[in-house]
Amino acid sequence: MVENPIPEKEVYADNNATTPVDPRVKEAIQPFLEEKYGNPNSMHSRGREAREAVEEARAKIASLINGEKEEIVFTSCATEANNHALKGAAFSKKGKHIVTTKIEHDCVLNASNWLEEQGFDVTYLEPDKNGFVSPEQVEEAVRDDTILASVMLANNEIGTIEPIEEIGELLEKKDILFHTDAAQAVGKIPVDVKKLKVDMLTLNAHKMYGPKGIGGLWVKDNVKIDSLIHGGGQEKGRRSGTENVPYIVGFGKAAKIAESSLKSDRKKLNKISGKLMELIPEKVDNVVVNGPEDVDRRLPGNTNFSFHGVEGESLVLRLDSKGIKASTGSACASESLEASHVLKAIGLDESLAHSSLRMSFGRFNSIEDVEKIREVLPGEVEKLREISSM
Amino acid sequence: MVENPIPEKEVYADNNATTPVDPRVKEAIQPFLEEKYGNPNSMHSRGREAREAVEEARAKIASLINGEKEEIVFTSCATEANNHALKGAAFSKKGKHIVTTKIEHDCVLNASNWLEEQGFDVTYLEPDKNGFVSPEQVEEAVRDDTILASVMLANNEIGTIEPIEEIGELLEKKDILFHTDAAQAVGKIPVDVKKLKVDMLTLNAHKMYGPKGIGGLWVKDNVKIDSLIHGGGQEKGRRSGTENVPYIVGFGKAAKIAESSLKSDRKKLNKISGKLMELIPEKVDNVVVNGPEDVDRRLPGNTNFSFHGVEGESLVLRLDSKGIKASTGSACASESLEASHVLKAIGLDESLAHSSLRMSFGRFNSIEDVEKIREVLPGEVEKLREISSM
Repeated sequence: MVENPIPEKEVYADNNATTPVDPRVKEAIQPFLEEKYGNPNSMHSRGREAREAVEEARAKIASLINGEKEEIVFTSCATEANNHALKGAAFSKKGKHIVTTKIEHDCVLNASNWLEEQGFDVTYLEPDKNGFVSPEQVEEAVRDDTILASVMLANNEIGTIEPIEEIGELLEKKDILFHTDAAQAVGKIPVDVKKLKVDMLTLNAHKMYGPKGIGGLWVKDNVKIDSLIHGGGQEKGRRSGTENVPYIVGFGKAAKIAESSLKSDRKKLNKISGKLMELIPEKVDNVVVNGPEDVDRRLPGNTNFSFHGVEGESLVLRLDSKGIKASTGSACASESLEASHVLKAIGLDESLAHSSLRMSFGRFNSIEDVEKIREVLPGEVEKLREISSM
Repeated sequence: MVENPIPEKEVYADNNATTPVDPRVKEAIQPFLEEKYGNPNSMHSRGREAREAVEEARAKIASLINGEKEEIVFTSCATEANNHALKGAAFSKKGKHIVTTKIEHDCVLNASNWLEEQGFDVTYLEPDKNGFVSPEQVEEAVRDDTILASVMLANNEIGTIEPIEEIGELLEKKDILFHTDAAQAVGKIPVDVKKLKVDMLTLNAHKMYGPKGIGGLWVKDNVKIDSLIHGGGQEKGRRSGTENVPYIVGFGKAAKIAESSLKSDRKKLNKISGKLMELIPEKVDNVVVNGPEDVDRRLPGNTNFSFHGVEGESLVLRLDSKGIKASTGSACASESLEASHVLKAIGLDESLAHSSLRMSFGRFNSIEDVEKIREVLPGEVEKLREISSM
């Protein structure tokens, strides 16, 4: 049995924001914060020891996505990886048009906006009401000067799993680079870069029980893009900066664990989120379930509701005071108090988009957590509705 | 007494490549790899707890350099911070000329090279034989369209402390942005951003007993530059990506320790490096001491020698086998086997630049380490000279 890092009586339902570190990952990190202190670029034995650990971790991560070890570029986070993919492709200057979607993470959208300021053209595809974009939409959007398409594998708010394989097939024929942000998907659903026919794929440790501050970009062997961070030539010149050895080792461990427990984790998470998506509309009036209902096309453990007449932020704070940690949507944007761009893109009006609650589950949740939520949530929604009707 | 992370009988003389993590820093990191797992952007209590810890750390780091808390932007390393400073200033598009020096770290040089490819002009100042550039050189180099000058505070190979304050004074009058890479200096010598009259200053945790994978850019309150990594708007929109909470906390702790132990650390390190710079030329023939001799103008704990007729790499490996961890120069470039650009810039010929040995000391070294080096080094140099003369 693995120790549970979540304190007793706490229901952590914000795993899409960040997962707790798996205690086995923490164990793997420790020696590299202690006596294995070397810089992996140093020639001496402490350096070589660190280098070996980094390369072992790289192999484990590659294995999880069926890529090659040499194709993994470590970055500090998924945000950096996404910036690297988009700007790196753009600055390699083979064209000026990029295709992406309206429901990407802010880092893809804001990197795209920045590229527009630099003179690039970006097409933002409109998803359907469940968050899906279609291969046909991508096909219609691409032009002769399209250099890159970037479509996320699984949405971080509503859990939509996009048809990456089908999009990959058509882009491969057109010789257009294809990037997918798989930060939320890897470790939760099977991800096979060969099957998906992508050229670049973004990874993130802290959504799969590794630490916050390490991510990666898988870049297919024959794909050459510009670097985002230039310097001492680490990561074969693709990303410079002294490697974060402890976290890379932890990321490797997290990948290894994910590989072996993906099936059972997925089953459990589908059970938890499925149960909740069934229960809440039974217990609460005027609720909308956001995102696809089909369990095979939705991120395991992801739920997203809109409660008519309820401020999402107020609900999150009330649940928090009862020991349930949830969110209104993406954590990154939570400070801005703007309604979710994802919910607006799938057609929710401003008010309904403001009334959202995302509950996302992970390895350290249990089916009992659903019971606790069922006990607390309907009453809190009711109280907030009473207040707002006064 | 602080526990020494270096195993007994090991002489770690490569602190400029990376320092071991101070055990007190490791302690500070732990809870954030355990139950304090929140994303600082989350609204719930686990998020707020993480946010508070990040902001406390920010204040500690600002205090160490006499800056304001809000002026610290966390990055994943000094390399990213230097890229951010240079590219951020360049893309804010107020001119097209940049001034820097030939002895900067590779990340400043390679970011500058990349900017040249994008149409910017860069002037690389030539240092004198001890690695110094003069305010007069900077004054001569700047033009009407100069947007930025970037001069490092202390050189990572030969330890030269540049006259930043004097350069800052003249650039302030000309209204040109001034950046200094202080990655090697902060924590080792007093650094006061106000006194130095800089606009941006690069920080790095893993050169001051924090972990590898966290750094920062101090950006003066009124200075606006473009971002390098766009996304969810963390760090007030200046650097997006989920914050590396455990390491940020560790970096804060490292700054706090540095503030209180800077004076005693500095005294000890000057004693160690001073002793070695005196001893080696006594014990070994045909050796050149690289970098300034004046203890006040040289990074404490930094030594750099060139041994005529000796391959630096071979010497490093031989010392390693005797338990002494050293380097030929910058760790980042060690894989390339090219001679140090710093040593060539101060006038060493190719062969002498290839025969360098950098021994850099830190908090966990003692004066006894000098004794061990004295016992081992002269014999190893002699053996290598015998081999090469055969």
